[in-house]
Amino acid sequence: MRKLKMAMIGGGVGAFIGKIHREAVRMDGGVEVVAGMFNRDPSQNAEIAERIGVTPDRTHPTWQALVAGEAARADRADFIAVCTPNHLHYPIAKASLEAGFHVMCEKPMTLTVAEAEELEALVKKTKLTFGLMHTYTGYPMVKLARDMVKAGDLGKIRKVVVQYPQGWLFKLTGKENMQASWRTDPKRSGRAGCMGDIGTHAANLAEFVTGLRITEVLADLTIFVRGRKLDDDGNVLFHMEKGAKGVLTASQIAPGEENDLHIWVYGEKKALAWYQENPNYLRVFDQEAPEQVWKRGNAYVGTKSASAVRCTRTPSGHPEAFLEAFANNYRNFCDTIRARQAKRKPTALELDFPGVLDGVRGMKFINAVCDSSEQGNVWKKV
Amino acid sequence: MRKLKMAMIGGGVGAFIGKIHREAVRMDGGVEVVAGMFNRDPSQNAEIAERIGVTPDRTHPTWQALVAGEAARADRADFIAVCTPNHLHYPIAKASLEAGFHVMCEKPMTLTVAEAEELEALVKKTKLTFGLMHTYTGYPMVKLARDMVKAGDLGKIRKVVVQYPQGWLFKLTGKENMQASWRTDPKRSGRAGCMGDIGTHAANLAEFVTGLRITEVLADLTIFVRGRKLDDDGNVLFHMEKGAKGVLTASQIAPGEENDLHIWVYGEKKALAWYQENPNYLRVFDQEAPEQVWKRGNAYVGTKSASAVRCTRTPSGHPEAFLEAFANNYRNFCDTIRARQAKRKPTALELDFPGVLDGVRGMKFINAVCDSSEQGNVWKKV
Amino acid sequence: MRKLKMAMIGGGVGAFIGKIHREAVRMDGGVEVVAGMFNRDPSQNAEIAERIGVTPDRTHPTWQALVAGEAARADRADFIAVCTPNHLHYPIAKASLEAGFHVMCEKPMTLTVAEAEELEALVKKTKLTFGLMHTYTGYPMVKLARDMVKAGDLGKIRKVVVQYPQGWLFKLTGKENMQASWRTDPKRSGRAGCMGDIGTHAANLAEFVTGLRITEVLADLTIFVRGRKLDDDGNVLFHMEKGAKGVLTASQIAPGEENDLHIWVYGEKKALAWYQENPNYLRVFDQEAPEQVWKRGNAYVGTKSASAVRCTRTPSGHPEAFLEAFANNYRNFCDTIRARQAKRKPTALELDFPGVLDGVRGMKFINAVCDSSEQGNVWKKV
Amino acid sequence: MRKLKMAMIGGGVGAFIGKIHREAVRMDGGVEVVAGMFNRDPSQNAEIAERIGVTPDRTHPTWQALVAGEAARADRADFIAVCTPNHLHYPIAKASLEAGFHVMCEKPMTLTVAEAEELEALVKKTKLTFGLMHTYTGYPMVKLARDMVKAGDLGKIRKVVVQYPQGWLFKLTGKENMQASWRTDPKRSGRAGCMGDIGTHAANLAEFVTGLRITEVLADLTIFVRGRKLDDDGNVLFHMEKGAKGVLTASQIAPGEENDLHIWVYGEKKALAWYQENPNYLRVFDQEAPEQVWKRGNAYVGTKSASAVRCTRTPSGHPEAFLEAFANNYRNFCDTIRARQAKRKPTALELDFPGVLDGVRGMKFINAVCDSSEQGNVWKKV
Repeated sequence: MRKLKMAMIGGGVGAFIGKIHREAVRMDGGVEVVAGMFNRDPSQNAEIAERIGVTPDRTHPTWQALVAGEAARADRADFIAVCTPNHLHYPIAKASLEAGFHVMCEKPMTLTVAEAEELEALVKKTKLTFGLMHTYTGYPMVKLARDMVKAGDLGKIRKVVVQYPQGWLFKLTGKENMQASWRTDPKRSGRAGCMGDIGTHAANLAEFVTGLRITEVLADLTIFVRGRKLDDDGNVLFHMEKGAKGVLTASQIAPGEENDLHIWVYGEKKALAWYQENPNYLRVFDQEAPEQVWKRGNAYVGTKSASAVRCTRTPSGHPEAFLEAFANNYRNFCDTIRARQAKRKPTALELDFPGVLDGVRGMKFINAVCDSSEQGNVWKKV
Repeated sequence: MRKLKMAMIGGGVGAFIGKIHREAVRMDGGVEVVAGMFNRDPSQNAEIAERIGVTPDRTHPTWQALVAGEAARADRADFIAVCTPNHLHYPIAKASLEAGFHVMCEKPMTLTVAEAEELEALVKKTKLTFGLMHTYTGYPMVKLARDMVKAGDLGKIRKVVVQYPQGWLFKLTGKENMQASWRTDPKRSGRAGCMGDIGTHAANLAEFVTGLRITEVLADLTIFVRGRKLDDDGNVLFHMEKGAKGVLTASQIAPGEENDLHIWVYGEKKALAWYQENPNYLRVFDQEAPEQVWKRGNAYVGTKSASAVRCTRTPSGHPEAFLEAFANNYRNFCDTIRARQAKRKPTALELDFPGVLDGVRGMKFINAVCDSSEQGNVWKKV
Repeated sequence: MRKLKMAMIGGGVGAFIGKIHREAVRMDGGVEVVAGMFNRDPSQNAEIAERIGVTPDRTHPTWQALVAGEAARADRADFIAVCTPNHLHYPIAKASLEAGFHVMCEKPMTLTVAEAEELEALVKKTKLTFGLMHTYTGYPMVKLARDMVKAGDLGKIRKVVVQYPQGWLFKLTGKENMQASWRTDPKRSGRAGCMGDIGTHAANLAEFVTGLRITEVLADLTIFVRGRKLDDDGNVLFHMEKGAKGVLTASQIAPGEENDLHIWVYGEKKALAWYQENPNYLRVFDQEAPEQVWKRGNAYVGTKSASAVRCTRTPSGHPEAFLEAFANNYRNFCDTIRARQAKRKPTALELDFPGVLDGVRGMKFINAVCDSSEQGNVWKKV
Repeated sequence: MRKLKMAMIGGGVGAFIGKIHREAVRMDGGVEVVAGMFNRDPSQNAEIAERIGVTPDRTHPTWQALVAGEAARADRADFIAVCTPNHLHYPIAKASLEAGFHVMCEKPMTLTVAEAEELEALVKKTKLTFGLMHTYTGYPMVKLARDMVKAGDLGKIRKVVVQYPQGWLFKLTGKENMQASWRTDPKRSGRAGCMGDIGTHAANLAEFVTGLRITEVLADLTIFVRGRKLDDDGNVLFHMEKGAKGVLTASQIAPGEENDLHIWVYGEKKALAWYQENPNYLRVFDQEAPEQVWKRGNAYVGTKSASAVRCTRTPSGHPEAFLEAFANNYRNFCDTIRARQAKRKPTALELDFPGVLDGVRGMKFINAVCDSSEQGNVWKKV
């Protein structure tokens, strides 16, 4: 297996998600970080570079320099990982694609739908591989859930309930909290706060598991913490294709909630439920039979989902969690790049990672919920 | 303790809730059923009467006969329990009050807001005791939750999420299913199906725990099962007093869900969660400290809620459940009657049972959610 | 249905289990308490009598007076409930049987095996109905568990693990705590403390679910709290018929544990687990298929256990708990009495309550674990 | 941070734990696998080498060749990871230490106590760093548990209950199952089956959390599956230092159980419980206050356990699991090597990984439980 060379933008000192990207790509041993622009601050930039073994000549002061510098090398990076605050996703992703790099991008993909569609067109045109880090769809039991729905086990989907409460923004936090600071700043975070940061994950999960698109939303977004500029809470009614309906609630002002993403999907025949904080189990409900608890790593999972099996590293009862889900997205993204580099058509299993279309969907979701809420809680097409 | 004499309307062969009423009132030994109109069918009517020891002279063929018959006796019943399908609640409750009986009524209290307000006025005028069987607020840990909120432990309430999924109506059921039959018939059930049957419980619980009224709702009700005449599912955004917001989702087409009423309440300081299917525990969340699990029957519960202690029959770890919650409502209702019969002002603890005001709130909620949904998902005042 | 007349010994002011007996028998409406000797203290004795409607002429100062008094009446009680501290179970049960009363007795049945066997012989001779209040086998899901094992669903049983931790005796409690006081006094509690009080429940549950007898035990009992005279904790290895093995651990010095009786049963094919504190669910494990969660009140339960169905009062999702389990034992006990009074052979479903044989088993278990522990942790036949 | 060079013995095609070792060491990016002897089969050996980037000149046909080959190089490996079946742990570890390599060894460390003590002496003499992969003590919440006990939060420890059920050996498996084959072969697995494989983990966890040694055991081991040569189930009573007592039960014939390691520790003041299959939570019990659920990744964890914080990679609610626990052991092991290479005394936090003393304890435990069981279930000193 050829090691892919990764260049990283973001993920500096104090960053949360960039460090996760590095830990996740390392897990399978198929990627090495060869270049980076981690921090604006030169000494912090150098500190991270040294810590992870990126040489000074490939440690760049700006993302523009990184893209240009890597583009000019014979041993250039295979892909660029974009782990910056939201407002930089679009320009970096665009420049990276234009320079011929595959891209793994944090979400939300852009600040506007127009930008998202521009990236979609660019990916189509360049035929480059584009990954969007919707971590939660990388969990094996989420893949199993999707494959059960796809196989018709639940029957036609009628209703979806998805909750995503967090508590970490329950008070106004100052500049000292790097995470909170940019995520609640419209210029860097985009039009939505809570809805952009985690509401999009919830919506993406609902679409992923059901295989149905959210067609319209009616949202009631709130800024509960005085002095904040973006929504820190939201409740959303939604309609999906084929008559399914649902409700999505997300919050970052829910004290004591950690990252409690839950989804319940109700079909005409059966239902299922999955909880992110205890992710190795998928509950399957039947009105006329005992509830079943499907557990990651068991042979019977393979009868329903080759994709779940492919994303399983440890035996049953040896739990996997967030980093492994993250790594699963990277693994499929990288195998797709390898296949294309080898002039081979990637398999469906390899292509099973979130990408530019999810990014467009996400931006449309953000736009629609913001429009809906601003215009007095009316239905808006997604 | 004087035994109160209860007359019962409804609760015949095959009935669900009437049997529960009988088991619940028996638990504390303070009530005896002395009269009844259980079934329209004479032989079934007699069968129940004999089974529970009601004499033939107090077993009536119609509810009108029961009210008149009991009113005429010197040893007349103290109160009448109304356990019929919804459409009969109002006329029976009204006639009972007018005949001077205290009333324990099933919910929803009436079919219209006007009827509900009429009963409210009648209760005010007659000074009789009126109980409405919102079972779930009878659970000790729900009382504890309310008392924590009231004491300010959670700070100002920001958000409420309440779910109430059931699965038993996931398919069209025929006449054979007595429960389903009247509950899905607009003439007997009223304007709402799922929202009237269980949505009102969810709304009542939200108001009870927070001490805040739902001021307006925006509802998306659905009939998922073809051939059904009333909503079998609904998603509702709501606003409460003092700026709290929330989302309520209820369903009777959620396969495998039993009676899974959940509530999460998020305040400025803390949060709490309670689950009806495992009701002896109250989870309390704090962003800066470990979650606490408060458990029924422990001495520390008494430091927060005298009402919870009063409603506790068994020691900690010897779980209590639905019938006990039901019996708690009856106990307080009966003690209030006894206090008034003894010309004593009932205490706050005795008065802690749902009543006619809850019934008015429930009808306003039903009306508002139906209006909202019919008029295109717009905000409606409750 | 004829109401049975119950005379009660014990259950006075401050008593725990006697009050539970009264609440439980009331639930089904088939029993009335007509006589009692509740407290030694005359005023307390009268207080309880008045509270529950027992007339002064049937309120007795001693249990001997009660037995004699009731025996002399034409309208004598049908059965006597023995809810006293342990040391009185035997003399009262004996006298009651000899006077021709059916008996419902608290556990442990006696203080010695010889006494237990004497009662066994007496029951056999008198053909009277004898119930022993092993509450936990009255839970519907415990009956389902037993019936699954009996049907061979688990295959041959290999291993049983049963835990029963409580915390209420974690410190030395003074006379002020009535419950603790007699339960830790060898003269009133018998040879064993924790093992007699709750270890017997755990052993009874293991035998009930598996249908196998514990043949020998090896016990390590401890008095952890200085100043206490009886074991407050114990760990027991045991062997059962047909080669099954197990481990039983019980404690009353486990801080924060309430009444956390758990059982796991492992067969050659499948396994099951049940938890008393959330008793409406039975987990069924299969090495090659998803775990199943069987839930009380669902139609599918009836395919496995008529006994569980018979013991179900409320629909699925409307949880039942401790009092209902207690009432189930009373219901079957009473229906057995009624059948015999009607000269009808009781059905297997009616006979499904713990009785004198369980009491003999319990005493043999206590004896064996005490012998084993005193003799240096050696195997002792039960 | 200097990358450490790792040579690996074992971990070939189809191996379970060797693959885990590789994934775990990769996570922190501080280790590279430079040499290996993965499989006896030359083509499989080469396959793994190529897959993970080990060059042919450092891919050895025997472990002896690897030790010799690496010892002869200037750029020799820093440490050797021993991931073979049990019988090879001792000779390889010994040869590695003698050749001057640090060692990370799978457990059980040896086949006999004498061998274990020989390694202990060798480690002492060589001053090399020796890690033993008791994964479960690498979990942050296990470290928190230990630190709570150490701080005296629970008071003096009275009782420990530890369960470790698995189901994967519930039937006789043939040669086709590589894992089962050597683990149930006395020549390769050692004197104990289930007790060596997982009983040692349970015992290690009990000693780790309480800080107390198991002083004596009384064991009842069983071979339930006909044709098997080693115990596949065992129940053990044990005594610890300072008067604590406990019970340990482990099984590999418990159908449907995955890897369900549970521990409950009861002190004079408080208690705690931890479950491996949902490892991000630590439950803390108090007889007089609500249960607390301590959750990984929260700031309050740091008030109790610097070691737990050091072992935390992701924010609260983004669960960590088995691989991260594994990686934690490697991280501390490697940082200890780095400190010593830098002539710096490792800190207590760096030294917080299981080592040769745990290995000696494990062998003594295995020996004692086997002796006890063989000699008729008598107490044996550990």
